[in-house]
Amino acid sequence: MRHIHIIGVGTGNPEHLTIQAINAMNAADAVFIPTKGAAKADLAEIRREICERYLTREGVRIVEFEVPKRATKDRSYVQSVDDWHAAIAHIYEGLIGDLPENGGGAFLVWGDPSLYDSTIRIIERVRDAGACPFDYHVVPGITSIQALAASHRIPVNLVGKPVEITTGRRLTETGLTHESTVVMLDGEQAFSKINDPEAEIFWGAYLGTENEVIRSGRLGDIADDILRLRAEERQRHGWIMDIYLLRKGRDFKE
Amino acid sequence: MRHIHIIGVGTGNPEHLTIQAINAMNAADAVFIPTKGAAKADLAEIRREICERYLTREGVRIVEFEVPKRATKDRSYVQSVDDWHAAIAHIYEGLIGDLPENGGGAFLVWGDPSLYDSTIRIIERVRDAGACPFDYHVVPGITSIQALAASHRIPVNLVGKPVEITTGRRLTETGLTHESTVVMLDGEQAFSKINDPEAEIFWGAYLGTENEVIRSGRLGDIADDILRLRAEERQRHGWIMDIYLLRKGRDFKE
Repeated sequence: MRHIHIIGVGTGNPEHLTIQAINAMNAADAVFIPTKGAAKADLAEIRREICERYLTREGVRIVEFEVPKRATKDRSYVQSVDDWHAAIAHIYEGLIGDLPENGGGAFLVWGDPSLYDSTIRIIERVRDAGACPFDYHVVPGITSIQALAASHRIPVNLVGKPVEITTGRRLTETGLTHESTVVMLDGEQAFSKINDPEAEIFWGAYLGTENEVIRSGRLGDIADDILRLRAEERQRHGWIMDIYLLRKGRDFKE
Repeated sequence: MRHIHIIGVGTGNPEHLTIQAINAMNAADAVFIPTKGAAKADLAEIRREICERYLTREGVRIVEFEVPKRATKDRSYVQSVDDWHAAIAHIYEGLIGDLPENGGGAFLVWGDPSLYDSTIRIIERVRDAGACPFDYHVVPGITSIQALAASHRIPVNLVGKPVEITTGRRLTETGLTHESTVVMLDGEQAFSKINDPEAEIFWGAYLGTENEVIRSGRLGDIADDILRLRAEERQRHGWIMDIYLLRKGRDFKE
């Protein structure tokens, strides 16, 4: 049976790779790298660098493939994601089918496969379709949450308090409900609509890469600076991936 | 100035170490390893194995130190943690003071330094006390959340939905408020008091180690099995570290 390695590779710093990830890459016959688009081009380049640096076993092929765009026209968000996954699953089925019998293939996942990533879901779809039997396992990787916290040198939670991880879309709907709220996938800069000037924001973009930029401060003081900086950086690179923590309260205050 | 590396080392699998963590360990003059207690003895052993496997630079010393117990008598939770941190800070100050001038010291943190760990807070305390000037940086590591998700081969979040990370204590207070709730530091098995039999639980203990054990299923079906298994495992090892995800709902259902 073929075997698929779903490998978290961290957020752009090749040193985020774990020994487990490096061993899994080298156990595969092919490493699959998605391409296309400005962000995808830069991210593909980082994945190529990871392969160059860590693939030491002879004969591991690097296989590039194009990822379709998510069609949003006349669809709900959920429907558009569902359709998109179906299209990607079709591509994965081809990649896996091209592996040698009993061969291994590796998907290098940005961050960690368990957080706001659908490689596991899509692989399950391919497996359930049954055209090509295979097994798979998951190797964890450093997420942008951890990279953000490490760069700011902060804990994500206050002592004994919970943390919410959410999206820009949901933050706009619910507002701040936790002492610590991590916001990912925010295309609408939801922080700038939070009316809580005493909250602190810890923001970062391109975390782990040489282009990393971070800012922190009282939300009321620096929200506009971050908006401006984010727009500049996005224009300069042609894409942006950012994340932030919003925090209310202090340790050792009930 | 002295330099402190706060290094996340993952959850017991030495292959969780990142290249960045290995390089930081080797850049230090001393690696500090906490000892004492049954759990601490096993965890100290894993840290020693990490040092043995990855320290390649000559002359890096391994320095073991005892961690005091948290005193809870006549104190609120917050006060007991505050006092405990002060006691540990005093020990850290001694460890750092014993480093050579301009030397480096490394703390190996279980999981990731940003999540339910206080090494960063305590290091800040030592720095603020000012007896011994130093700088520090943080190296992220694989958390037990990621190890749990990888072993169960599941995403932590449902598509586009938020995740709450909380403690057993808080879960008992608030109940399930999110589609995905990760519970850490649960000494009271709060899942067994959640009256939501349709919720699914994904549970794991000793994740990443050779003693790893995982279970998943409908909460109403397997809560009692997990309670029993947890008690057996705890008795066998003399300690337990476990974590679980509670999930309600499905992908692609609004």
